[in-house]
Formats: sequence, C-alpha cells, structure tokens
Amino acid sequence: MKKILQELINGNITMEEAEKKLKTMQIEELGDFAKIDTGRDLRTGFPEAILAEGKDDQDLIKIIQGCAKRGRVMVTRLEEDRYHNIKDEINFIQNKSLKVEYNRKARILLLKDGEIEKRGKIGIITAGTSDIPVAEEARIVAEEAGCEVLTSYDVGVAGIHRLFSKIRWMLEEDVKAIIVVAGMEGALPSVVAGLVDVPVVGVPTSVGYGVGKGGFTALNAMLQSCAPGIAVVNIDNGFGAAIFAATVIKQRIK
Amino acid sequence: MKKILQELINGNITMEEAEKKLKTMQIEELGDFAKIDTGRDLRTGFPEAILAEGKDDQDLIKIIQGCAKRGRVMVTRLEEDRYHNIKDEINFIQNKSLKVEYNRKARILLLKDGEIEKRGKIGIITAGTSDIPVAEEARIVAEEAGCEVLTSYDVGVAGIHRLFSKIRWMLEEDVKAIIVVAGMEGALPSVVAGLVDVPVVGVPTSVGYGVGKGGFTALNAMLQSCAPGIAVVNIDNGFGAAIFAATVIKQRIK
Amino acid sequence: MKKILQELINGNITMEEAEKKLKTMQIEELGDFAKIDTGRDLRTGFPEAILAEGKDDQDLIKIIQGCAKRGRVMVTRLEEDRYHNIKDEINFIQNKSLKVEYNRKARILLLKDGEIEKRGKIGIITAGTSDIPVAEEARIVAEEAGCEVLTSYDVGVAGIHRLFSKIRWMLEEDVKAIIVVAGMEGALPSVVAGLVDVPVVGVPTSVGYGVGKGGFTALNAMLQSCAPGIAVVNIDNGFGAAIFAATVIKQRIK
Amino acid sequence: MKKILQELINGNITMEEAEKKLKTMQIEELGDFAKIDTGRDLRTGFPEAILAEGKDDQDLIKIIQGCAKRGRVMVTRLEEDRYHNIKDEINFIQNKSLKVEYNRKARILLLKDGEIEKRGKIGIITAGTSDIPVAEEARIVAEEAGCEVLTSYDVGVAGIHRLFSKIRWMLEEDVKAIIVVAGMEGALPSVVAGLVDVPVVGVPTSVGYGVGKGGFTALNAMLQSCAPGIAVVNIDNGFGAAIFAATVIKQRIK
Amino acid sequence: MKKILQELINGNITMEEAEKKLKTMQIEELGDFAKIDTGRDLRTGFPEAILAEGKDDQDLIKIIQGCAKRGRVMVTRLEEDRYHNIKDEINFIQNKSLKVEYNRKARILLLKDGEIEKRGKIGIITAGTSDIPVAEEARIVAEEAGCEVLTSYDVGVAGIHRLFSKIRWMLEEDVKAIIVVAGMEGALPSVVAGLVDVPVVGVPTSVGYGVGKGGFTALNAMLQSCAPGIAVVNIDNGFGAAIFAATVIKQRIK
Amino acid sequence: MKKILQELINGNITMEEAEKKLKTMQIEELGDFAKIDTGRDLRTGFPEAILAEGKDDQDLIKIIQGCAKRGRVMVTRLEEDRYHNIKDEINFIQNKSLKVEYNRKARILLLKDGEIEKRGKIGIITAGTSDIPVAEEARIVAEEAGCEVLTSYDVGVAGIHRLFSKIRWMLEEDVKAIIVVAGMEGALPSVVAGLVDVPVVGVPTSVGYGVGKGGFTALNAMLQSCAPGIAVVNIDNGFGAAIFAATVIKQRIK
Amino acid sequence: MKKILQELINGNITMEEAEKKLKTMQIEELGDFAKIDTGRDLRTGFPEAILAEGKDDQDLIKIIQGCAKRGRVMVTRLEEDRYHNIKDEINFIQNKSLKVEYNRKARILLLKDGEIEKRGKIGIITAGTSDIPVAEEARIVAEEAGCEVLTSYDVGVAGIHRLFSKIRWMLEEDVKAIIVVAGMEGALPSVVAGLVDVPVVGVPTSVGYGVGKGGFTALNAMLQSCAPGIAVVNIDNGFGAAIFAATVIKQRIK
Amino acid sequence: MKKILQELINGNITMEEAEKKLKTMQIEELGDFAKIDTGRDLRTGFPEAILAEGKDDQDLIKIIQGCAKRGRVMVTRLEEDRYHNIKDEINFIQNKSLKVEYNRKARILLLKDGEIEKRGKIGIITAGTSDIPVAEEARIVAEEAGCEVLTSYDVGVAGIHRLFSKIRWMLEEDVKAIIVVAGMEGALPSVVAGLVDVPVVGVPTSVGYGVGKGGFTALNAMLQSCAPGIAVVNIDNGFGAAIFAATVIKQRIK
Repeated sequence: MKKILQELINGNITMEEAEKKLKTMQIEELGDFAKIDTGRDLRTGFPEAILAEGKDDQDLIKIIQGCAKRGRVMVTRLEEDRYHNIKDEINFIQNKSLKVEYNRKARILLLKDGEIEKRGKIGIITAGTSDIPVAEEARIVAEEAGCEVLTSYDVGVAGIHRLFSKIRWMLEEDVKAIIVVAGMEGALPSVVAGLVDVPVVGVPTSVGYGVGKGGFTALNAMLQSCAPGIAVVNIDNGFGAAIFAATVIKQRIK
Repeated sequence: MKKILQELINGNITMEEAEKKLKTMQIEELGDFAKIDTGRDLRTGFPEAILAEGKDDQDLIKIIQGCAKRGRVMVTRLEEDRYHNIKDEINFIQNKSLKVEYNRKARILLLKDGEIEKRGKIGIITAGTSDIPVAEEARIVAEEAGCEVLTSYDVGVAGIHRLFSKIRWMLEEDVKAIIVVAGMEGALPSVVAGLVDVPVVGVPTSVGYGVGKGGFTALNAMLQSCAPGIAVVNIDNGFGAAIFAATVIKQRIK
Repeated sequence: MKKILQELINGNITMEEAEKKLKTMQIEELGDFAKIDTGRDLRTGFPEAILAEGKDDQDLIKIIQGCAKRGRVMVTRLEEDRYHNIKDEINFIQNKSLKVEYNRKARILLLKDGEIEKRGKIGIITAGTSDIPVAEEARIVAEEAGCEVLTSYDVGVAGIHRLFSKIRWMLEEDVKAIIVVAGMEGALPSVVAGLVDVPVVGVPTSVGYGVGKGGFTALNAMLQSCAPGIAVVNIDNGFGAAIFAATVIKQRIK
Repeated sequence: MKKILQELINGNITMEEAEKKLKTMQIEELGDFAKIDTGRDLRTGFPEAILAEGKDDQDLIKIIQGCAKRGRVMVTRLEEDRYHNIKDEINFIQNKSLKVEYNRKARILLLKDGEIEKRGKIGIITAGTSDIPVAEEARIVAEEAGCEVLTSYDVGVAGIHRLFSKIRWMLEEDVKAIIVVAGMEGALPSVVAGLVDVPVVGVPTSVGYGVGKGGFTALNAMLQSCAPGIAVVNIDNGFGAAIFAATVIKQRIK
Repeated sequence: MKKILQELINGNITMEEAEKKLKTMQIEELGDFAKIDTGRDLRTGFPEAILAEGKDDQDLIKIIQGCAKRGRVMVTRLEEDRYHNIKDEINFIQNKSLKVEYNRKARILLLKDGEIEKRGKIGIITAGTSDIPVAEEARIVAEEAGCEVLTSYDVGVAGIHRLFSKIRWMLEEDVKAIIVVAGMEGALPSVVAGLVDVPVVGVPTSVGYGVGKGGFTALNAMLQSCAPGIAVVNIDNGFGAAIFAATVIKQRIK
Repeated sequence: MKKILQELINGNITMEEAEKKLKTMQIEELGDFAKIDTGRDLRTGFPEAILAEGKDDQDLIKIIQGCAKRGRVMVTRLEEDRYHNIKDEINFIQNKSLKVEYNRKARILLLKDGEIEKRGKIGIITAGTSDIPVAEEARIVAEEAGCEVLTSYDVGVAGIHRLFSKIRWMLEEDVKAIIVVAGMEGALPSVVAGLVDVPVVGVPTSVGYGVGKGGFTALNAMLQSCAPGIAVVNIDNGFGAAIFAATVIKQRIK
Repeated sequence: MKKILQELINGNITMEEAEKKLKTMQIEELGDFAKIDTGRDLRTGFPEAILAEGKDDQDLIKIIQGCAKRGRVMVTRLEEDRYHNIKDEINFIQNKSLKVEYNRKARILLLKDGEIEKRGKIGIITAGTSDIPVAEEARIVAEEAGCEVLTSYDVGVAGIHRLFSKIRWMLEEDVKAIIVVAGMEGALPSVVAGLVDVPVVGVPTSVGYGVGKGGFTALNAMLQSCAPGIAVVNIDNGFGAAIFAATVIKQRIK
Repeated sequence: MKKILQELINGNITMEEAEKKLKTMQIEELGDFAKIDTGRDLRTGFPEAILAEGKDDQDLIKIIQGCAKRGRVMVTRLEEDRYHNIKDEINFIQNKSLKVEYNRKARILLLKDGEIEKRGKIGIITAGTSDIPVAEEARIVAEEAGCEVLTSYDVGVAGIHRLFSKIRWMLEEDVKAIIVVAGMEGALPSVVAGLVDVPVVGVPTSVGYGVGKGGFTALNAMLQSCAPGIAVVNIDNGFGAAIFAATVIKQRIK
C-alpha cells in the first residue's frame, strides 16, 4: 500500500489509478481470505454433479441446461426410465462440445468433453452381484475425478482364497486406497483392512432383507470393525466414497 | 377295555378290580397324551437352572434351597459380590452330597454331585478377550449337559491363519457343533460357517461401544450372514447356545 | 521328499519327473492347507443357489446360464412375474439333462436332474396361513439338501390341542430338527421348544402390522424365548433355516 | 328462573334472596356442565396416588403431608432406601387416623384408615419370579380400588399343565379380569387370552437382557398377539393395569 | 363308572353298550379338562374371522368357502379391489342362508344370517377423519359381537367443548366401555380417560407423517398416558379393540 | 477513499496518516461484512453460558475464571455436589463486582452484577412436579435474557379447569410466548396451543418409564401435534426454550 | 344482576324482559369462560385448512364443500393427480365469490376471495432444490396468514458466502422470523441461528437416503443444535412452521 | 527348483542340502502367499494396542506383561482409577527400556522406548471442550503412528471466523488429512469439508443429551453430509480415526 501511495505522491500514477490499484489490492486480500473456500482444486476438471433423486424432470432439465453452459456435467441416481424421459431435451440443450453418456448400472449421465488425466490408482471391491450398481457409481465418479480404477466384483467372504489373490493384485498394482462395497452383514471391509495397509473406504449397501434391510447392519458392522484403517460413508453412497478416495490420491501427488 | 369288561362278566375280576383297571388304563391314555411334555430326556441329569439376575438375594437363596433338595443346581449370571453375599447360606443349606463350585468368569454357581458322562464334542470360539465370560458360561453349561468342549478363545478375524488352524483342529477332533461368541462387528461366525459343515451357533456379545453398544450390531450381522449354516441366540446368551448345541449332539447319539 | 530326491540321484526318475513330483507334492500340501475350505460335503449334490432379489433379469439369466453348465441350479426369491419374464430364456439355455420346476408359493425355480437321496427327517410348522410361503421355501431347500420333510401348516398358539397332536406325530416320525415359522408375536417356537428335545430353528416372518411390521417383534420374541433349545435365523429366511436343519441332520449320519 | 322472578315480584322473597337464588342456580348449571369431570366415583375411597420416582425426598414429604390432610395416601415406586429416609417424617406428619404400611416388593407406601370393601374378583398371573414386584404393585393397587385379588406367580409358558389348572381355578372363582405380568418374550398373555373369555390386561416387564432389555419385546409381543381379548399397559405399569381392571369390575356392579 | 359296571353285571346293558358308555364318559372327562379351551362363549354366534391381508385371493376364497359351510363369516382388511376380484366366487360359494355385505370404509366382508342380539353399549370416538376406517372396523366387529355402538367421529382435542358434550351423551347412554381411535400425537384417549370412569381402550392409528409415521408416537403416548383407566391395542387394530370391549360388556351381563 | 487520497495529494495528511486511514476504512468494510455475525444484540447483557455437563471440575473452574473476567457468567447443568466441589474456588476467582447465586432445582450457577431490565412477559407451564427442574432452568435463563416470567407448575391435562384458569391469567397478563414443559405422553402443549394465539414452545422432559423413557414419546407427541402454533426444542432443553422465547419477545420491542 | 332485578321491581322492565336479560348475562359469563377457546384471532381471515392426505376423494370433496360455504379454504398435501380428480367438482361446488388456485410444488389448493393484508415479514431459506416443495407450502400458508415472505432457495452450507449475503438481505428487510428448511444433515438452521437474532424455525425434510432417510437425521441435528434460538417442527411440516412464524409476527403487532 | 535339482545331480550339493533348499523355497512361496497378511508396515514401530474396556484388571496386567516383552505397548480407554489400580504392577513388569506415560484426558497408557519419527502432518479439530478427550486419544495414537499433529480444540460452528483462520493455518502447514471431532448436531465436519481438499475423517462423540444422547445424531449427520470428501469412524473412536489418517499419510510417502 505504501508503494501505491508513494507513487501517487510522486505523481507516477493518477488518483484514479491509485484508487483502482488500492481497490484491486483490497479485493486480492479479501480473495485471499476467501481462497480457502474456492481453492478446492480437486474439482478442477471435475464435472458439476447433480443428484437426480428428489428433483422432478422439469427442474432437472433446467439445472442440467444451466450447468452444461459452464462445462462438464455429471447427473447421479438417474433411473433409466427418467433418463429416457429427458434424453431428447438433454441432447438438444447440451453445448456442441459435450458428449452424452448414460451408464444404466451406475445410473449416471455424463456430459463429457474428453477423458480425464489419471493421477493414481484405487481399487473397488464388492461382496456380491447386487452391490455392483453402487460400485459402478463409485468407479465412474472416481474416474472423472482422475483415478485409474481397478475393480473386482462379487468377491464375498465365502471364497477367501479368491479374495486373497485379488487383494494381492491390487497391492501389486500400487493402489493407494480401496473402496469396499458390501451389504448383508458388511464383513468384507474388515477382512480387507486386516490384509492391507492402504486406507479402506467402506460403502454399506441397502442390499439385504429382515434385519439387514436398508443397509444399517452393514453400516454398523463397518463402523464397529475390529480392523483399523477403515472409514465409512453413507449407505449406497458410491459417489461420496469415490470423492473421498480421489482426495486421498490427490494428497499423494501434491 | 373289551378285555377288562369280559373278565368282569366272566367273574375273573371283581367290579372293584375292573373299576381300578379301567381307571389305570384311562390315566395311561391321559399320560400318553401328556408324555410329549415330560419326555425331554436331554435334561435327565442336567441340573435345575436358576437365573440370578432379577431376583434378590433372599429369593435366590430360597429357590436354591428348594432346588437343592431335588438334586443338582446351576445358578447363572451370579455376580461375584452376590456370590459372596449368599455363599455361607448356600454352604449351609445344601444337602450333604452336593459340592459347591463357583466360576467367576462364567458367573456360574454349581451344586454338583459328580461329573457328567460326555456324549459328544462341541467347539467354542471367541473373537476377543472380552467375549470370554459368555464363552465360559456356554462351556460350563455344555459340559453339564454332557458335551466335551474344545475351546479356542481370542481368535479374531484379524489373524485368519490362526483361525484356520484352530478350526482344522476342531474338525479333526470331530466336533458336531461350533459355538462362535463375538461382539463388535460380529463377523467371526460368518467366516467360520464358510469353512465348516457343522452347525454354527452364533452368540453376539454386548461388548462394543458407539454403534456396537449392547451387541445389536453383532446380532444383526450374524442374522444377516451370507454364509449358510448359522443360527443365532440372544445377545450374551451363552446358556442358550450351550443347550442348543447339546440338543444337536443328542440327535446324533439317539 | 527325501524319497523323490533319492530316486532322482539313483537315476530312477529323470529331473523332469522329479520336478513334477515335487510340485505335485507341494500342491498337495497347499491343498491340505486349503481343504478346510473345500471339504464342505453337505453341498455335494446341492444345487448352486442364486438369490434373485437385487439382481436384474439380464444378470440373473446370465448367472443361471453359467451355473447350469456346472449342474443343478436353485433360484430363490424369484417372484412369479419375473419367472414369466425369464422362463423362455431359461428353457432355452438349460442343458438337456435339467428339468425346470417353478414353485409359486416358495418363489423357487429349480433346474433339477433327479431326486435327492433323503438322509433324515425334519419337521416344519407354521403359525398361520401367511407364513406358508417362507415355510415352503424352507421345505424345498431342505428336500434339495437331502431331508425328508414333514409339514404342519397353520397351527397357531390358539389351538394348543391341535399343536400337541402334530408335535407328537413329528416326534414319532423321529424328526431330528423342527423349523418353526411364525410372524405376529412369534410365540410358537417357544411353545414347541417347551415340548420337544430336538433342536428348534425359529424363522420369524415379516407378517404383521403396527408394532409387528417387518417381523422384528417375532424375531425378538424368539431370541428372548424362555424355552431353551431354540436358535433363530433372519426374518423370512426359510433358506437359511433349511440349510441349518440339514447341517444338523448331517451330523447325525456322519 | 321464571319462578324466582315471580316470587320476587310477588314480594315472597327479597331482592337479595332473589339474587342469591339466581346465582346458586347458575352455579348449579355450570356445575352440571362440569360434572363429567368430577363424577369419577371409582376413586371414591381410593387413596390419592403419588409417584415417588422423579421427585426428591423433600418434595415428596411435602406432597404426602398435603395429601394426608385430605385422607388416605398411596405412594408408588418408592425404593426401600428412600422409604427409610422419609419414614420418620412420614410417621410424624400423618394424621392420627392413618396407619402406615410399606410393601418392599411392591415398593408401595400406604397411609390407610381401614380396609376397602371388595366389589369383585380379578386374577393376577406372572410368568417368572422377576415379574413379581410389578404384580405385587398391581395387587395392592387393585385391592385399594376394591378388588379381591387371586394371584398365581411364576407360571411360565414352560409348564402348560400348571398354567391350565391355575386358569381353571380363577375362572371357577369367577374373576372378571385377569392381569398377566410377563417379561422376556411376553407370550403368556396370548396363551391365557386363548383360554378364557374375560378381559386380559397384559403388563410387559423390563425383565430380560439383550433384545429383551427394557421390556420392549414383551410389550410388542403382547400388542401383536394373535389371541383376541388382550389390551396392554406400559412396561412395568402394575398401577395402570390394576386401575384398568378395577374399572372393568366397576362396570359390572353399576 | 361303578354304575355302568353294575348295570353290565346286572345284564341291564350289553358289553357293547357298557364299552360305549365308558368311552363316552372318558371323553366327557377329557372334555372337562379341555373345556377351559372351548368355553369361550363370547364368540357364540360371532362369525369366524379371517384376516385377508397376507393371503392371496385363491387361498382366501378357499378359506371363506370352508368357513361359510360352518356358519357366519367375517373377512377383515379386505381392500375394495380385492373384494371385487373375489365377490363373484363368494356369491357363488356361500350357502343359501347367508347374506353378503361389504363395508368399504371398514374393509370388512360379512356373510351374515341375521342380526345379533345386543347385550350392552359401547362408545367409539375418533380424533380425526382419517381415523374413521379403523373406527368403522371396530364398530362392525363390536356389533357382530353383540354390542350396541354409539359413535362420535372427528372430535379432536382442538374443540374441547364439542368433545365434552359427546362424552356426556355417551355416559348418559350408559356405555360400559369407550374405544378411542387416534393417530398423530394420540392425546385424545388421555383426555377422555380423565373425564370418565369406564374402561378406555386406546387404538393408535398409522395416520401421521414424519415422527408420527406408522402410528408409533400415538401408541407410545397412549401407553405413557398420565390418566389411569386406559389400556391399548396394536396400531390400527380396530378388530382387537372391539373384541376387548365386547369382552368387558360380557363380564357385566354374566 | 477518493477523499483520503485527495487529502494526501493536498498534503492535508501525511502518507502514514493516509495509510492508516485506508486500513481503518478497509477494516470497517470487512467489519461490515462480518457484522451479521456480531450483531446479535439479544445477548447484550446476557451472561456467558457454560454447560457444566461433559466438563471435568478443573476445566470448568478455568473456563468460569476466564469468563468472569469479561463479565457475568451462567453455568448450567451443574449438579449440586459438583457445585459444592467448586464453590470455594469460584468464590475466590470471581471479580469483586459479581455475586454468586446457585439454584439447586434449576442446577444453575449465576455470577451476577445486578438485575436485568425486563422487556416483556412469557409464561412457563409444567405438566407435573417432575418437570419443574427443567422449567426452573428455563425461568432463570429467560429472566437473565430480559423476560418477566409467569409460572404455573404441575398443571396436568387431568385437571382441565385448573389449566383453563391459569392460561386465562397468562393471556390477561399479556404474555407473548408460553413455554410448556411436559414429559410422559407430552399432550399438554397441544392442549395449550389449542387455547391461545401466542407461540407455544414445547419442552419434552426425560421424565417417564417404559415407552416414555428418555422423553422421546413426549418429544414426538409435541412434534406430531394436531394443534398449530407449536415448535419444539430438545428433550430437557429448558435453556434453549428460554433463549427462543426471549428472541420472540425481542422481535416485539424492536 | 342487582340492576336488572331492581328494574324488574321498579316495573321498568317486564318479567319476560328480565328473564331474557339474565339469560343473556349468563351466556356472556359462560362466553367469557369459553372466550380463551374462541379468541384465537390469528386465524381471523385465515382459510379453513384441510389435510388431503389420509382422506379419500369423496370425503375430501364433501369436506371442501362444507367449508367453502363458510368462507375461504386451504387444502394441503393434495397431490397433482388427486387435484385433477376433484377439480371439476371443486369448480362446481365453490360459491361464486371464491377463486380456485392450485400450486403444484406446494401441493396446496386455495379457494380464495382476495389478497390478505400483510402484517410483517418473514424469511424462508432452503438448503437444497429438493427442499423447495416444503418451503413453498410454508410460503403460501404464511402469506395466507398475513406474512410478507422473502425466500432464498437452494442456499446450502457449501457456499457460505452466498448464504451470508442472503441472510444480510433478510435482516435488512427486517424479517421477524426465519424458517429454515433442510434435509440431509440438517446443519443449515444451526448456521443461520449463529448469524441472526430473530427466531429460527427449523423444518427438517424427508429428503435423503441411507441414514438420512425419512428426515430423522435432519430433525435430530436441529433439535441438538449448539446454536441457541432454534425451535423445530415435524419433518416436512411447512404448514406448522408457517403458522408458528405467523404467530410470532402477530405478537409484534399486537 | 530345476537349478537345485541340477546341482544335486551334479553332486555340488548333498541330498540333505537339496532337501533343505527345496523346503526353504517352498516356505518362501507360502510366505509370498501370506505376505499380504504380514506386510502391513504401517505398524512397524507402532506399539501393540490393547483396549482396556471390557477386560478386568488381572487380565489386563497379564496382557500388558505379555506385550511389553515384545516391545512398545499402548493401552487405550484406561480410566484414571483403573490406571492407579494397575500402575504398580505395570511399573514392575515393564522391561527396563520402556518408559511409562499415562495421559488422563486421552485415557491412554504408553510404555514407550523413544520418540517416533514423524512422516507427515495431520490436523485435529474439535467442536467443543467436551470432545477433547476423544481428540486427545486421536492425537496420541496419530503421533505414535508417525504423524505430526496440529490441534485446534473448541472451534464450534458458532464462531465461523475463528474456524476459518484455524483451517487456513492447517492448510498452510500442509496437513494431509484433518480429523474433525464433534458431538451434538455434528455439523463441523461438513463445514470443514466444504473448505478444504484434504480427506476429512469425522469422529462423532457421545457428547449430548436428549436426541443427541450416545452420539447417534452426530454420527448420522456426518454420514449424511452434503459436503463430499468426508468419511466417518465409530462414535468416540479417536483411535480408529488416527490410524486411518496415519494410513493416508503413509500413502503419500511411499
């Protein structure tokens, strides 16, 4: 500030220039204050994410339209029939440079403009076939967030030997985090965390019936796990697990 | 009946004798009807079991006194300090032929009159040290019910190799049922049931904190297990698991 | 090993033969280590079991197709309308020697290649008409697992006399385990366990409304039962109860 | 009103008398309106009831003192040690005509002035020994409310024959309601209601552990009962069950 | 028995006759033993009750057909569309003397053979319009069980004056029990029980949303009521409340 | 800004003065941005509030010491025995101008420096005696927040006439909000809200047993209330209710 | 009264006139007694409110018809398809002076007769797009109750700067209460209450999945909030929040 | 293998040497197979961890004694009074090179042999004073696992500016993970995760009352968080959060 005022006194700059420079400086300071809020560079390149659930079709189309103007878009939890309802309008509204991709299993709609540069590897393991949709959601989100993803689906606790060989493969491939998706009794993350020393992100699924209905047994079993090195996200929250794993990857390369 | 009436008519028996014979026959029929209620021979030789919890000391002493007259007695869930409160009176009231034994870990008081003949083997496994009291309750009850018991305590999911060797030992010893006692995330019974083809009786324990408090996570995980061949008893119910396992053993030798 | 090396030195076997023999020996040792995982002979002859719930039709058809190549198949929790969706493809894909059977009540699809040899008897009792689908699931699974099944459906606590006579019949037929299927207040297994000395496997059902909705009251009542000799499986888990009962039967005949 | 005004005009009454009469009439009308609130004659003679739980000793003594001036007093849920804390002051404050009685099992303190006339019979049954305190609370309250009480404690579902004979005795004694007190799986009221045609009032108790802890399993089992003719009160609420049963008795004799 | 044998000896009766008489006598004794189970005369004249919920249409028709042969039938929880599915077959199968009545609100199908003699009065009160279906179920069931029913629907806590006048009317009509049907916060039974001295049977309804969803708030509020003289049945259980109230009525007239 | 720069150029102020003035201005702008965070003038004069629960004695003393330097202090949920543990140190540490007051019922410790000016009236009503501690907490907090408080304790739903007269008194005194404290079935706020048109703040209490244990029944009943004009705070949260009511009062006088 | 009687005696009024005057006076006194029940002038001008949920179409039409005769009507929770079912009959039945308005988002049907005079301002904030329907319900209800409403939808915790500017705007507009509608983790009301000193009414929404399903997490987070000055209504209860806020506004202008 | 056999044939090695070499090779292969289980090098240098909770003093001393022979020991959840019970024996049993340290807040007993080399930084933030014990547990465990720990305790959502400055400091210090410990409504982790792009590990605490009791509200709010990049551990599980954060750090330096 001293320097600006000195230049003003010296006549090097006009008062208007001085005022402008001081305002800019002030904004920069405010900006510095605010930077912690905006500096989340993980999402540099990450598409804007929209949760389709709980929004009606008309609102959803409008929101996608708005986001697509600014760049890439990811719509999660978009059931296939809803996709068919909106796809014509989506195809129409999107700007020219975006390509539309819909993944039925993952229930994700992507408006992409190219592939993301990969910055590290993570693994995704599911206990059963019914856990695959949640795992697929995690896979696509993690890929869009710059992770190379190794998957091994349907590896239950039942066949421990099969699990061992898949875990070994992932460790040899140098994954830096493993997402374990499991419903029912949710024991798989405990077993995996007992075998590896990378962070294990447990994703309970709402697969199950009776006491397992809704995924709460799996959730609680993961939270209560004897094995250290596990943290857990909400039931069926493949999205959150992928973002978390990508955040771990990012620490490594900073 | 025809035969009795014929004999009456023939004068072979008097009317009083006929009446008596008919009444006896009738009681035998009623008895036959009731027999299903009394024929539970498993408990032949099994001591009368008294749950100390929820009874005050004076009531407990009176009930033990009553039972000790009829034979052997087992008092469960008797905390050590309560045992010390009542032991003098117990020593006094017991009939001469019974020997008093108190197991602190299992919280069981036995008034015994000799060892029980063993009729088969069962295994008892615990996940952690804190599960041992429930396992010990199961062990003593199973022994009193005629089982030879093999135990392997503190074999968590963490050390799968150690678990494998213990399981193999039990199978080689030809156990006919395995009781698996586990708190926390309750994953152990699933793992065991995936390895063996004998009935696995899961006993969740109230060990744990946060979401695991009270043992409900362990209970639900066992009920929701992917592995077949598991059935479950109430939280901390070592007694029930032992009786159930003894009932399985009994089927085998009938 | 010494022997192999000696023979190699003696020239009885070539180095190639020695290497092969040593490798085989090593695999046998590894196999011995792994045997506890593969020795579950109960399922010898038991069809591969697929849970239809939570899998979409296309995935289900693919999985059935894969399993049918290896032998008999059992698909559980397959609703009638889904069966009609897939039955043409199932009829087509199945190998020639398998016969397709669908049981609407039990919601089970079987691809069978003949009848199973029966190795022992179990009983199945239901409290009400609405519990029958779960009981039928248990019946078919138990039969496929080698049990002869005696059923007595709709014998509530209400009519205790009727229950008595059915229990007596089952005991006279020498059943070695009784599966009791009950919703509502779930009292039936307690009553049955008070009358018999064979293992009683309680299956709570999700029949009921208000506080009984979802089957939790029945589940908890069975777990909390005063009568010993009961163990419990998950709500509506007829499959699990049948496998458990078959495991008990198997102990007896080993 | 016309009559009063006429008399005023006629000079039969003075204006002051007329005003007084009109006011009285008005109060009587208001009183008539309010009568539904005050006409609860069941409690005629019933002592004022004070719940000790949740009140500290000083407050409790003051409230008892206040009530004792108006007549008989019943203090419920008064633990023995609290009774000893306050008994000297209670003995002092009570008016001369009241006799102090404390029942340790029922945790009830009575300040009585004689026996209550009995107006009908009810039965009270408990499943186990641990349910007796709640049953005793119900017994004393019912007696104070004018019921003759027949009790049969510790008659579990286990021994159905014993239960049958007790039920028959109560019916022969012409009880007009049966209170069934049960914890654990709470099956006893269902069984009793299946045998009788008098109203059955279920009282779940907080006896039990694991899933039965707090009495919710017993409560839900009673609410969900298949047997008609049962209504339920809060867990451990012997007081409420007794008042309800006494209200039933009262209908009969009106 | 002596008399029969004497007559046999005297030749007054043949041996066949004696045998027959003895058998009859024995059955009568057994019958005496069983009488407590069968003597529930409340249901004399009460139609056989079938819960439609949880039974498929074919099973339901068969059960109705079976019951209709023995007399009057009541089918509860029969949704209108299901009624239309089965009504042709019901009209066909019913025996000539039964008249078919379907009540849409109450979801009850009656196969009647005349009106029931009324033995006493009960009142039914609902808090809101949405509670009426449960109240109507209670009304029809109570009428079939011999009660004259006074109803007052949609009298919430809001308008206390309106409630007062309805309560007064019911008391003047000498009702011997009041069924109070309420969802939401379930406060109405407490208010009613504070005003009357007849038994109040609370029926919580599943009306409500958020924390009131499923009726548990109403249920718990009724169980926890400060006002004595309330007992409670399961959520939406109009049937049970009516049977209970009818059982109370019956005590009065015995 | 222009003005400052002009004065600098004009030589009216030195560069140091200009720099200082610009910084001040900038801080004022930032301050303006932050003002929404600091403008909560309700608490002007309100003592700093410290929750004693969950802090050990040493920490608590240190925090009180720190706060007392800045002015008045309120410590809530301070049990009597804890107060006795710390009172000597509190008496010592307090600055001279503060007076120590401890209210046993409310469990509040105040370090005051005079009375607060009252800005409006609120009412506080409790259903029972056991609700008084929570009501007293609310009363003291509301008084410290500038409310004149009218109380009416122990006015249950039972005696509706008594409630009516108390409500009328409060309305005549022109209270602007009523806090209703109730445990058990929590019906009182609904009844009050049906009678008044001022905001009713419901405070459920943890008074109660069985289904009412912990206060959840009261909480849910208040949330589910049919009567409009009620909002609810956490169980036993007299503090929060008082602050909320004081915030309402404050709107009025602004 | 004295005055009336004096006039009667003086012959100024006839006896009939005196009787009539006395009756009127008496009614006025009764009326005075009852006034607390009827004096709720907030709803002066507020339309009669009908909850469509839980009522079938025919009942709903009848109730609307009844209310429309007396004036303005508001039907809440009326799904769009149900509106289409009944709109023809509504258009027909309404009296001439009422205008029909249906708001799809808010699910509210209004039969209006003009705009309401506004008496004060409130703010409504939502955390996400999915919370808007509940916020819209609150907006319309608050407007009908005489509030001017400022809305700011979709201001999550994520973008704190955006939230700050909206809050500042509302405070500058002098809102007297803020309704904060939030699902998921329900943190927004805490943040808002930390920034303002007007009453904050939290409305949890049933938006969310897994542990957030049904809105209980949001509800509990609001109740448990660290920030003072929050009170909470039932999940999704926009109606109740609006009535509460309008009641606050009303205090201010009295 | 070929090589060994060749050397044996060539006579370079004896048969005994060949046998030994082959066995070693085989063990190495098996070891390779098992390595995934043993290669968890994070815990290299990490003390053996023992949970004191649920173990009695005698068992605990024995286990510590056993572990201390092998190296460093950490005992968690050891209450101060229990520490005093066992400290003499611990001081005695420890081997000479270990130093005993007890941290009262964290409830951790360390038997250390020097400081751990630090491999990266993490931050730990608590919402309130009562969350500090859990945070301290996390701090000590993280330090023992090789993390440099930056702490900022008692930074609630209330004072957002204070939080901002602390977060900025941590980011400037280049922390690679932040543990956020919070009870009550558990909103802090959401706010933090909205500001940073390092992994946030949420630790709910059992601080709170009413609906917050036990920490479930905080847990669910964290799981349900709108902000991405959060994963959660069990309630009060400072240990688990620290191990998880240390595992993240470790990925970075590999």
